[in-house]
Amino acid sequence: MAVSYSHCLQSLRVTPRSRLFVSNVDCWRDNRIMKSYSPVSASSKKPQQDLSLEAKVETLLDSVKWDDKGLAVAIAQNVDTGAVLMQGFVNRDALATTISSQKATFYSRSRSKLWTKGETSLNFINIHDIFLDCDRDSIIYLGKPDGPTCHTGSETCYYSSVFDLLKNPQGEESNNLALTTLYSLESTISQRKAEVASPQNGKPSWTKRLLLDDKLLCSKIREEADELCRTHEENEDKSRTASEMADVLYHTMVLLSLKDVKMEEVLQVLRHRFSQSGIEEKKSRATQG
Amino acid sequence: MAVSYSHCLQSLRVTPRSRLFVSNVDCWRDNRIMKSYSPVSASSKKPQQDLSLEAKVETLLDSVKWDDKGLAVAIAQNVDTGAVLMQGFVNRDALATTISSQKATFYSRSRSKLWTKGETSLNFINIHDIFLDCDRDSIIYLGKPDGPTCHTGSETCYYSSVFDLLKNPQGEESNNLALTTLYSLESTISQRKAEVASPQNGKPSWTKRLLLDDKLLCSKIREEADELCRTHEENEDKSRTASEMADVLYHTMVLLSLKDVKMEEVLQVLRHRFSQSGIEEKKSRATQG
Repeated sequence: MAVSYSHCLQSLRVTPRSRLFVSNVDCWRDNRIMKSYSPVSASSKKPQQDLSLEAKVETLLDSVKWDDKGLAVAIAQNVDTGAVLMQGFVNRDALATTISSQKATFYSRSRSKLWTKGETSLNFINIHDIFLDCDRDSIIYLGKPDGPTCHTGSETCYYSSVFDLLKNPQGEESNNLALTTLYSLESTISQRKAEVASPQNGKPSWTKRLLLDDKLLCSKIREEADELCRTHEENEDKSRTASEMADVLYHTMVLLSLKDVKMEEVLQVLRHRFSQSGIEEKKSRATQG
Repeated sequence: MAVSYSHCLQSLRVTPRSRLFVSNVDCWRDNRIMKSYSPVSASSKKPQQDLSLEAKVETLLDSVKWDDKGLAVAIAQNVDTGAVLMQGFVNRDALATTISSQKATFYSRSRSKLWTKGETSLNFINIHDIFLDCDRDSIIYLGKPDGPTCHTGSETCYYSSVFDLLKNPQGEESNNLALTTLYSLESTISQRKAEVASPQNGKPSWTKRLLLDDKLLCSKIREEADELCRTHEENEDKSRTASEMADVLYHTMVLLSLKDVKMEEVLQVLRHRFSQSGIEEKKSRATQG
C-alpha cells in the first residue's frame, strides 16, 4: 500500500523541544480521500522535501524487525498518564499509516486488514510520538485517546487482575484497571469520597476527615508546601524531601478530588504549557504574576 | 513444566487494599532448587489450600487465549512511573512461573526456553500485579525494576523516537526515552539544571531563574499552594484548579531537581504509605503532626 505524507508535510514544524512534530491535521482521512481520487506515486509532482520524507520513512520501515508473518507488536500508551491503553500488531502498512495519519493504526490478524482505533467508535488515539525498542520488533504509540479505548467502554483493555481472579475465581469478572501509583492513589481517594457521600460511610480515615473539612485540608496543603520548602532551606536530606513531596501530592490530590479534577487534566495543562517556552507561556497567561 | 506454589503460599496475605498478595520471597529460585531435589507433583503431601491455588492457577492459564505457537504478549510496566520497560512473549509455563516467583519471566522465541529478566544482570522486575486484557491474549506485568531493564543499560528498551529518526536518519542513534508528561517535564528541568551548571548556560528561562534563586523558588511554591487552595475556598471553576495544580507540580519539581530527588522516589514513598491504613501510617511517622 502506498502511503502519502504530502498533507502531513504541510504541517511539519519543529517544536521548542526540537522534536519533529506533525500537527493534529487529520492527514489520515485526507490521505484516504486523496487516494480515492489520485493515487500518489513517486513520480507525482511533489516538493523535494516530500520525496525525501517518503524515502526516510521507507528506510525506517526497513529497519523494523518484522516477524515471519510481517508483524511487530504495537503498544498504545496514554501520553499523559502512562496507562497502557491496548496492544495490537502492526505490519509495514499499519505503521506507515500511523506515521502519516497520526492516528494509532493496527493490522487485524483475524480480519487480515488494517484498522484504525476509533474508525467505528470515534475514540481515536492521537499520536504524539512513536518509539521503537532496542531490537526494533516492538513499538510504542504514545498518544492521547479521544475517549475510552476498550470496546467494553473501559478506559483501557487491562482490567482483569490475575491476583483478583486467583482470589475469587468464581466471582464476577475483575474490574480493576492496571493503575500505577499516582492513579491508584487517585482511585483510593475517589472511593473515600464515594463512601463519605453514602449513608454507610465505612471506616473513619484521614482522607475522609480531609474531604469533610475544607479548612483542615487547605491548612494541611499550605503546611506541607511550607515543610517541603524547609527541607531545601534547612538543607535536610533527600529522604525528607521525598517524604514531604509525597505529603504535598497526597493532600493536593484530595483537593483535586473535591473539585472533580483528574490528575490527567492537570498533566494535559502541563504538556500544553511546556510545548511553548516559559516566556511565551507566561505572556499568554494574564492571571499569572 | 510443573510449577509449585507451595513456597509462595507460605507468604500469601491479604493487603489492606484487599488484594491477594504474595510477598517478595524469591519463590522462583526456591522452586528451581526444590525441583532439582524433589519434583513436586499433585500427589505430594501438601496443604489443601496449596492444591486449591494450583487448580485456580491452572483454570486461569486455561482462560488465556494462547496463539498458534502457544504464546501471548507480555508488557512489563513500572508500577510507580508507568514507563513501559520492555515487551516479550510468554507461554503457559512463563506466566505460571511469574505468578509463582513474582519475577517477570518470559519465553525466548530465539532460544526456545524460559528466561527471567534479571537472571544474568540481577536487574529483576519484581511483580506487584499482573493484568489480562479484555480478550485475554495480552498481559501487563506491573512491577518494580531493580535496575535498568534494557541490555544496553538504558532504563527501558524504548529510546528510539520515530520522529527523531525521520528528522535525522543519518545522525546518531536516537537516545530519547519514551517519556510521558510528568517525566518529560522532569527531564526538561534536569536539562536546564545541567545548562545552568555549564559555562555556556544557554538561553535564559524561568526554570533557570528558579534553579538559581532559592528564595524565589520557595516563595513561588508557597504562593502556588496558596493559590491552589484559593480555587477551592473561593469556589473557582475546575480549569483554575487544574491550572494552579500544574503550577504547584512544576515549581515543586524544580525543587526536587535541586535536591536530586526523582519523582519515582516520591511515588515509591506514596505506594509504601498507602499499602497500610492512614492511621497506621501516621502512627509510624513520629515527625507527622
